[in-house]
Amino acid sequence: MGVEKKILVIPGDGIGQEVTSWGKKVLEAIAENFKHKFTFDEGIMGHVAIEATGDPLPDETLEKARKSDAILFGAIGHAKYDNDPTLKVRPEQGLLKIRKELGLYANLRPIKLFDDLLQASSIKPEILQGADILFFRELTGDVYFGEKKRSEDRTSASDLMIYHKYEVERIARKAYEAARTRRKKLCSVDKANVLEASRLWREVVQEIAKEYPDVETEHMFIDNAAMQLIKDPKRFDVVLTGNLFGDILTDEASQIAGSMGMLASASVGDAIGFYEPIHGSAHDIAGKGLANPLASILSAALLLDISFGLKDEAQRVIKAVDVTLRQGYRTMDIATKHTANEFILGTDAMGAKVL
Amino acid sequence: MGVEKKILVIPGDGIGQEVTSWGKKVLEAIAENFKHKFTFDEGIMGHVAIEATGDPLPDETLEKARKSDAILFGAIGHAKYDNDPTLKVRPEQGLLKIRKELGLYANLRPIKLFDDLLQASSIKPEILQGADILFFRELTGDVYFGEKKRSEDRTSASDLMIYHKYEVERIARKAYEAARTRRKKLCSVDKANVLEASRLWREVVQEIAKEYPDVETEHMFIDNAAMQLIKDPKRFDVVLTGNLFGDILTDEASQIAGSMGMLASASVGDAIGFYEPIHGSAHDIAGKGLANPLASILSAALLLDISFGLKDEAQRVIKAVDVTLRQGYRTMDIATKHTANEFILGTDAMGAKVL
Ligand SMILES: CC(C)[C@H](C(=O)O)[C@@H](O)C(=O)O
Ligand SMILES: CC(C)[C@H](C(=O)O)[C@@H](O)C(=O)O
Repeated sequence: MGVEKKILVIPGDGIGQEVTSWGKKVLEAIAENFKHKFTFDEGIMGHVAIEATGDPLPDETLEKARKSDAILFGAIGHAKYDNDPTLKVRPEQGLLKIRKELGLYANLRPIKLFDDLLQASSIKPEILQGADILFFRELTGDVYFGEKKRSEDRTSASDLMIYHKYEVERIARKAYEAARTRRKKLCSVDKANVLEASRLWREVVQEIAKEYPDVETEHMFIDNAAMQLIKDPKRFDVVLTGNLFGDILTDEASQIAGSMGMLASASVGDAIGFYEPIHGSAHDIAGKGLANPLASILSAALLLDISFGLKDEAQRVIKAVDVTLRQGYRTMDIATKHTANEFILGTDAMGAKVL
Repeated sequence: MGVEKKILVIPGDGIGQEVTSWGKKVLEAIAENFKHKFTFDEGIMGHVAIEATGDPLPDETLEKARKSDAILFGAIGHAKYDNDPTLKVRPEQGLLKIRKELGLYANLRPIKLFDDLLQASSIKPEILQGADILFFRELTGDVYFGEKKRSEDRTSASDLMIYHKYEVERIARKAYEAARTRRKKLCSVDKANVLEASRLWREVVQEIAKEYPDVETEHMFIDNAAMQLIKDPKRFDVVLTGNLFGDILTDEASQIAGSMGMLASASVGDAIGFYEPIHGSAHDIAGKGLANPLASILSAALLLDISFGLKDEAQRVIKAVDVTLRQGYRTMDIATKHTANEFILGTDAMGAKVL
């Protein structure tokens, strides 16, 4: 009855190690309960991979990735590299390379608040209540992948912000398709009043919009979007944007969900899906058992839903998170001082509650 | 006793017309009260200039600018150009050109909440109370001014994100000097984990930091900064960042001040200062007498303070705004439904109250 699937787990750096083990345990529990057969393999990437092999994305990990049906990833990055901008080999190169190699051009980041976290955000509850946004962030183009240069005398440095028509088209179609199944509103974010790449972006989205006359299209400048997102998050349904602007807006939007520790993302393209929390490696709390495992667990839910089409299983996971929160269990990052019925747990205790 | 100064007023587009007249009236009142002699000239720029001359920044305006001691500007932009990304001549080019031509490389944006607007924001009052941030946004470099290209077949488009060492140095020094007069904390925002231009930025800031051992320096990635800014605005004192990231962060930060309609900015460099509200042309409400004139009035205060060194006069203006707010007068954008003692006014009535 069940399905057979191969899942690659890449914990990565910092709290990635602690939280990803919980995403994996939840997948194992789902397999057992729903009679699926998930087989797991593990790969290294990022700082841990540099330490072990000198390469942030060893060939072996990439090969394992290609052979898997879906990938559950943790986080990447290390303060050592952040403090020394002259280092040539960097953890993030591993993540950027795997996105490119696997053609993961669409990064989906659903932003929705669990009812019980209404007080955990810095934003007023009445502004948040009912907000439900699905971000489509382009993931394999933009200034992330354009040519990088340093002048010979090292006194100037540049990155090329570049978009190709086909890159905008394919993600725009995915975003419009999703908007059709939701509230039928799409907001495309760019900086077309200044950037040529954004003007191309806008032209292409305007064209694709004609194929979806049932979806209402709006174009917004990134500066305004960064403001509107916290002023009135309810005005957004699907938000479509480039790699850099998407990076910024989705982190900002984490406040709408109460905390970064709650947000999962799915990177998809033409083949394998790649699932990861939005939060980073958070080295300041790594190894202390304090990190919130919910984003990894919710990434596992996205994996079940999007890569395997297992909607009931995904819902079961989300429900488990919801119930855990309703019972008052919180990790540090989502704790408030507003209710007496709050119990602050560490990573493992929180993971176990959901399980 | 008083000073003699020449001020160029450039109302620009949309609500720029309505609000800038109030900034000017306040300057006139200050001159009268404090026995200064301000002479005013007026210039055109943006969509209005394109309509009149075909050029978003006519030479005549630029010449007037060079001859003035300070410039009070309104806003720029028009929906016509936003909806048609293929248009070659665009209003924003006027603003970008004047920034470049006058060497206005440092854009200062102070973010501080007037006590009476604590309820006007979407962010919780307890998160906002006491927040006081001074942004230093680099204004004549970055992807704004790097080479723009469109491929011949028009299927790809690019902008070069580029920074030169001297550009980072000069604004970093200005920001550190300011930090010294404040809480002695500086946060430099970049994306050094991905961008080469950001790695140069970080290297240079790390170097300049050594000249200011009394100031505590922190480096933060833009995605994290966009999140921290609303999660915990009080952690920031001086924020130093590039042109694009500064554009995004300062608009976002407007929520900390209650509304975009409250925020003024000063663009300075080696000579003349240029003062403008952060808000844009807002064509949806232009000509209706609804726009908030306070950002223009506060821009006039910044002009008095920074360009003319007239601190008492600047304080008088800020005080007038404060008193007006305390009396319960609000424009639409800063109105809340929390107090019965609120009186909603249009642009002119609000301007007159401050006057
Ligand atoms: C770690 C970093 C390279 C990455 C990005 O900027 O894409 C991260 O911030 C993310 O959003 O996935
Ligand atoms: C109008 C536009 C070109 C401008 C910018 O992006 O710099 C504006 O948003 C600003 O912040 O002054």
